[in-house]
Amino acid sequence: MSHARIVQVERDILGENDRLAADNRAFLASQRILALNLVSGPGSGKTTLLVRTIDDLKDRFPIAVIEGDQQTAFDAERIRAAGVPSVQINTGKGCHLDAHMVGHAMERLRPQPQSLLFIENVGNLVCPAAFDLGEAGKVVMLSVTEGEDKPLKYPDMFHASTLMLLTKIDLLPHVPFDVDRCLEYARRVNPGITMLQVSALSGEGLPAWYDWIEQNRLNAGAATAAVSAAQGS
Amino acid sequence: MSHARIVQVERDILGENDRLAADNRAFLASQRILALNLVSGPGSGKTTLLVRTIDDLKDRFPIAVIEGDQQTAFDAERIRAAGVPSVQINTGKGCHLDAHMVGHAMERLRPQPQSLLFIENVGNLVCPAAFDLGEAGKVVMLSVTEGEDKPLKYPDMFHASTLMLLTKIDLLPHVPFDVDRCLEYARRVNPGITMLQVSALSGEGLPAWYDWIEQNRLNAGAATAAVSAAQGS
Repeated sequence: MSHARIVQVERDILGENDRLAADNRAFLASQRILALNLVSGPGSGKTTLLVRTIDDLKDRFPIAVIEGDQQTAFDAERIRAAGVPSVQINTGKGCHLDAHMVGHAMERLRPQPQSLLFIENVGNLVCPAAFDLGEAGKVVMLSVTEGEDKPLKYPDMFHASTLMLLTKIDLLPHVPFDVDRCLEYARRVNPGITMLQVSALSGEGLPAWYDWIEQNRLNAGAATAAVSAAQGS
Repeated sequence: MSHARIVQVERDILGENDRLAADNRAFLASQRILALNLVSGPGSGKTTLLVRTIDDLKDRFPIAVIEGDQQTAFDAERIRAAGVPSVQINTGKGCHLDAHMVGHAMERLRPQPQSLLFIENVGNLVCPAAFDLGEAGKVVMLSVTEGEDKPLKYPDMFHASTLMLLTKIDLLPHVPFDVDRCLEYARRVNPGITMLQVSALSGEGLPAWYDWIEQNRLNAGAATAAVSAAQGS
């Protein structure tokens, strides 16, 4: 098969995805829902951080979660045990969520207006970078056990992300990890990226993460209000 | 684009890959080279374990390494600093090595007869599972910081692997990780899988890993010798 044909097929797939992502984004904007696409390699602590975040924020505003994994419904069960609605998507052989899957999951999940929607992607620092789900932004998580070189080795994901959460910082005393160098590497591929350091175990750094969410919820509402006003005028 | 067309394209790509993998395998067998395809998520400690392994084994037999990453030549430089030849493959947007890339890398690397060839794949627990590179076996690494549920969440990779190396076991006192449950999960998707526990930092468990390599080097030589004798008769 020719290389040109493979490239064309990739373009077709991404074009179709982008159309469906635009539909998702329009729905989310109409409901003033802030959707965050959580991306990372396997085992960076996405679900543990999510459960803690839900515990701490669920009394402030409604939260819902779409969980992506190749197999198992473990994560959706953990999220439901934390007290918020969750839908699991199993991708089977697939290596990432796409906008089509997320659109259908939202139909089942029915997130409330002005809620916070977390989309936990398949643990994979490569493929999910290329797929817009209609989210407000990608939040890339990197645990301090993974090494500070990862932003340079997987630049697409760090380039595509708005926020970088450095996770498991309670383990910093036990691993070789240079936080300043990691931030420098991340800014080399994405000068505008914000980095926050958190530990779901100790709670260190979580207030700044929650402030970031609150600020973006306000922005989502304001941006939508501005769009609505412009459309209505 | 139709789903059927996507599936057909996937089959074409995998079919082409399998033909090239068979070429690689024939070359490796003719030279009695044991090739191991090292797969894992990002940051599981593949390169650190490799450097330690090279240090400990390079006086026993020749070793060469093919390094895969989306970007950077960091890992190939680390390997060369350890004193053995290495070729870096940068996959760019790509999420895995394929047999075509590995074939060309072997032409540049020219691994010696009866040597050990490590192929360090892109850090990704999903996509590399589907691509045969012509290796003798896949060795999947999982660090104890990633959680014991990973074999069930990423079953294709654990199903495709011959050996599972549980890495960073020096961190077991600092993280919640159930070794027995992890092994049970791995055997649920691959009853024949072998698990070894190692720490590149403390050296714990490395002798068993080296014994496993030695045994497979002997097997590779014996299998090839048997094939040669049969063809020559």
